[in-house]
Amino acid sequence: MRTISWDKGKITLLDQTALPNQVRQLEISDYQDLIDAIKRLAVRGAPALGVAGAFGVALILKSAEENNWSGEKINAAIAELRMARPTAVNLAWGVDQMNSIISEGFAKVLVAAEEIATNDARANRAMGKLGADYLIKKCGNRKLRILTHCNTGALATTEWGTALGVVRELSERGLIEEVLADETRPLLQGARLTAWELSEAKIPYRLLPDSAAASALFAGLVDAVLIGADRITRNGDTANKIGSLSVAVAAAQVQVPFLVVAPESTVDRSLETGADIEIEFRGDAEVTNFGGVSTAPVGTRTYNPAFDVTPVRYISAIVTEKCVYEMGNGKLL
Amino acid sequence: MRTISWDKGKITLLDQTALPNQVRQLEISDYQDLIDAIKRLAVRGAPALGVAGAFGVALILKSAEENNWSGEKINAAIAELRMARPTAVNLAWGVDQMNSIISEGFAKVLVAAEEIATNDARANRAMGKLGADYLIKKCGNRKLRILTHCNTGALATTEWGTALGVVRELSERGLIEEVLADETRPLLQGARLTAWELSEAKIPYRLLPDSAAASALFAGLVDAVLIGADRITRNGDTANKIGSLSVAVAAAQVQVPFLVVAPESTVDRSLETGADIEIEFRGDAEVTNFGGVSTAPVGTRTYNPAFDVTPVRYISAIVTEKCVYEMGNGKLL
Repeated sequence: MRTISWDKGKITLLDQTALPNQVRQLEISDYQDLIDAIKRLAVRGAPALGVAGAFGVALILKSAEENNWSGEKINAAIAELRMARPTAVNLAWGVDQMNSIISEGFAKVLVAAEEIATNDARANRAMGKLGADYLIKKCGNRKLRILTHCNTGALATTEWGTALGVVRELSERGLIEEVLADETRPLLQGARLTAWELSEAKIPYRLLPDSAAASALFAGLVDAVLIGADRITRNGDTANKIGSLSVAVAAAQVQVPFLVVAPESTVDRSLETGADIEIEFRGDAEVTNFGGVSTAPVGTRTYNPAFDVTPVRYISAIVTEKCVYEMGNGKLL
Repeated sequence: MRTISWDKGKITLLDQTALPNQVRQLEISDYQDLIDAIKRLAVRGAPALGVAGAFGVALILKSAEENNWSGEKINAAIAELRMARPTAVNLAWGVDQMNSIISEGFAKVLVAAEEIATNDARANRAMGKLGADYLIKKCGNRKLRILTHCNTGALATTEWGTALGVVRELSERGLIEEVLADETRPLLQGARLTAWELSEAKIPYRLLPDSAAASALFAGLVDAVLIGADRITRNGDTANKIGSLSVAVAAAQVQVPFLVVAPESTVDRSLETGADIEIEFRGDAEVTNFGGVSTAPVGTRTYNPAFDVTPVRYISAIVTEKCVYEMGNGKLL
């Protein structure tokens, strides 16, 4: 099953807000509904957002052909979709890939969007193999204990996963002892999504509060940390889910390898360093409420960035579908 | 109002599991109910546990006198109370202080327990002044932005607070710009208790996911970090609420002062280093459920230590009611 696909004139999404308690599909035929789904994280994960952007442009063109939209209206819709979330470069990348060929019409764009989805799935498998090979080289051919943050699995991509794709590959080779999955506050992607994927795949795991990751690292319970990325700048600085920086800093203190696994499309060569990355801030209610229950005094304001930037000095290597970039010497990509 | 007090033959506790939505008092006349309240964190915070331990011994002696308990039964009850939670040294300390005078009878023990509560309140004020003076010396006489973790306020002590007592003192001097309060998963003591205390005291604050603390530190939003302690060993290693280590490591990277504020009774001179501290592990449901709603797949196991140990190399100073121990040179206490 794919996380996101095109089916009978609609985009079909696995609704990630309903997991793990419900496995529910969303069928989207209006681009505004897609933007809404992106904003409330029914679909999330940088590579999945790239595919959503591409299919979204196809959906806009379909609506445009059926309803005789003006070029202006088409462009406005595409621009709105492109900016639905600012930090992951992949959404804009997916939109831009399609935008460059919209003059060829809906049918051609749909074929190209399907190709992006297929390529994403293929790239994930390649990353998985490269990452697994690299870890075996670094840690030896033995069962590994991997700590991960947020969700970088099939749900964050078209299928398989990036960082969690490496875990799946290691698991297929019989080389996973345990995955420690950060719960990933405030939206609990680790608890709701990663734990669900690991459970479905029968890969042994334990869930931990994000703040316990440093304890696990210092206690020697982790052989390597694997995370994904929402945007990587030329120097290797990496924006990823809030909390990644914390884990990276702790891992560096105890010399545990910290690997970023992401497709080449996540590398934004237009930005020199992480200081140039726009960070999305989200609403107070994500932190002050849970399931409709208030967990903080009324009127509490929050500091709620959706992402943080891990400076390259804390990153051991970046794994893409093309190669493993070793960061020890701060090499530019 | 005191967090814990002795009133008409009973221990009166502010029930911390009901905050911030309800301000509810518990009246406890049976030591088993006190142990239960300690285990489910209706009363928590190292100094408050010291007072609870002392009043608890008084309660046991009262029941013993009223019901003619054997010496054996008294000793068993005291031993059970002493071990209700293992990591905070203060509980055992409060129990031991009283245990050494039980032969003098209930009335004398009660007077001594009251004295521990009064001394705790007095020590808190002293720590507040010493900590504030120290920070002004370090950061200049200007409004400060303080990050804190867990709850170290009036609710964690008899009144006023340890780390949050320093914040209260700074606030009275007009020197708080903002407090960044970590929500403190899994039990949200920061969201439920610290935010409530700050809101009541009209001290400006924002709440953040624990994993966002590193982001705030790296973004330059924090002048100093203040935390409490559950046990401090001879070399200065400090056990405190899970997540403290993470903040300490990040603060060290950006050279933000990291201060531990705790009474002298938290220093356990019988232990050389943090490696000797017993860490309490708590149940899976704290991480996998929220308000009765499951947030992870059924059967998910967790890594859920209640505390971590921050090595002294990440600690700038330890503030007690007696003095400020500067840790820059790894000085023994």
